[in-house]
Amino acid sequence: MGSTFAESLMRKGHQVFGFDKDQKVIEKAIKDQVIYDSNLDLIDEADLIMLCLYPKQNIEFVRTHKNRFNKQLITDISGTKVHMINEILSILPHIRYVSTHPMAGREKNGYDNRDLTMFKDANFLIVKNENSTMKDIKLIEGLAKELAFGRITTLDPREHDQLIAHTSQLTHLLAVSLMLSDDSVHTKDATGDSFRDLTRIAKINEEMWSELFMDNKEALIEETNRFISVLENLKNMIKHEDYSQLKSNLRKSKEKRISFDESKSR
Amino acid sequence: MGSTFAESLMRKGHQVFGFDKDQKVIEKAIKDQVIYDSNLDLIDEADLIMLCLYPKQNIEFVRTHKNRFNKQLITDISGTKVHMINEILSILPHIRYVSTHPMAGREKNGYDNRDLTMFKDANFLIVKNENSTMKDIKLIEGLAKELAFGRITTLDPREHDQLIAHTSQLTHLLAVSLMLSDDSVHTKDATGDSFRDLTRIAKINEEMWSELFMDNKEALIEETNRFISVLENLKNMIKHEDYSQLKSNLRKSKEKRISFDESKSR
Repeated sequence: MGSTFAESLMRKGHQVFGFDKDQKVIEKAIKDQVIYDSNLDLIDEADLIMLCLYPKQNIEFVRTHKNRFNKQLITDISGTKVHMINEILSILPHIRYVSTHPMAGREKNGYDNRDLTMFKDANFLIVKNENSTMKDIKLIEGLAKELAFGRITTLDPREHDQLIAHTSQLTHLLAVSLMLSDDSVHTKDATGDSFRDLTRIAKINEEMWSELFMDNKEALIEETNRFISVLENLKNMIKHEDYSQLKSNLRKSKEKRISFDESKSR
Repeated sequence: MGSTFAESLMRKGHQVFGFDKDQKVIEKAIKDQVIYDSNLDLIDEADLIMLCLYPKQNIEFVRTHKNRFNKQLITDISGTKVHMINEILSILPHIRYVSTHPMAGREKNGYDNRDLTMFKDANFLIVKNENSTMKDIKLIEGLAKELAFGRITTLDPREHDQLIAHTSQLTHLLAVSLMLSDDSVHTKDATGDSFRDLTRIAKINEEMWSELFMDNKEALIEETNRFISVLENLKNMIKHEDYSQLKSNLRKSKEKRISFDESKSR
């Protein structure tokens, strides 16, 4: 997603310096005008530094280069926040910092899978911390609008991580569990669209998601327990053939999902 | 789905007599050439009787009209089998009977939502019982091929209900639980495609699914428990930060899902 940001910003007239562990990717990106250049020594003069690594690597990058950070605004696009933001602020207690979570991932990652249509109308979360000024938040918001994101919402890190535990991490855990609990040779013969839809995201990047799950483990465990208790509850209605309770819960679920369709931005 | 079967069969040159509790639907269906006529007294002369009601209503129909059944082959298209087939065979112990489950539902039901593209390449399950002869199974198989169904698989009732509990009923329960366990006002702001995909089927027909869930409760409870124990297992890997176990399970899930994609018929 970092290279999609770089290319989108370049096309909007910004001068983007980009870095990658792979020198070949850097050379290709310069040739493709995805980045303007790659000189790490110019980091001092940047207006904005966007960290596009996994949470742990972002912390590592900041720690390694802490002497290069001073007046610049930093941001990141990672999927979990509480732990990473705390770590970064403990390394750079006076840094200007506004974190973001663009809800626009793709199954395939890496430089060659960048996609300039990815951000169009997607939800964009701004995650503020005690070092985020209103002015810097507005600046990031302006950038998101410039790149065609849709609904923009500002949250604090704990709110963000709890929400993401439910809407993104738990959903991936459910898809994985559904796939792992399947041991019939006939599954492929007996599926309609529902099984395919629910398990599509089980084609998971195991490195990234293992890190994201563990990085947000308190919120994720809490959401998983809450989910299991709702499921157990439905199971007991079925077990005791409590038809009216079951029907009323299914109707409630249907109504929530319909109102969600009506409120969504895309 | 009954009216889609009727219209598809009529277009293939079969003479279809159809019945509905609503006289207006019958009149419309005759005018639309979805059925040829609707005379219940001619049931004696039918080659094939296709029951297209919910399981309990199918049993009720057979009980009410049991004197009309004799040498005809009967079939049905309902979503659960063990209980219904046993009941029907206890009412008509000598009937020729081959049950089916076309994996081709739509969110919207009713006469006006029939859809002639619905069966194209969809999976078709034949569910045989002790009264099913090879000749009658072949006849139903031929009909499914004539109507453009894709992969055709023959199962016994218990196999069918266990499989459906996992691939269809459990997936609906998960979507409902995900929707019901969501209580954040920010959910609509923080969703990517995964939450939308996993909850689409939460827009559920609460009458039909309450009946299907309870009709297959043993298998569904068993599959739900198995799912919860896999999910608890993953949760514990996250809790204890067992990175290598977690990663290896995510990889296994990914590989299973990819091989599922490769084996599917559509």
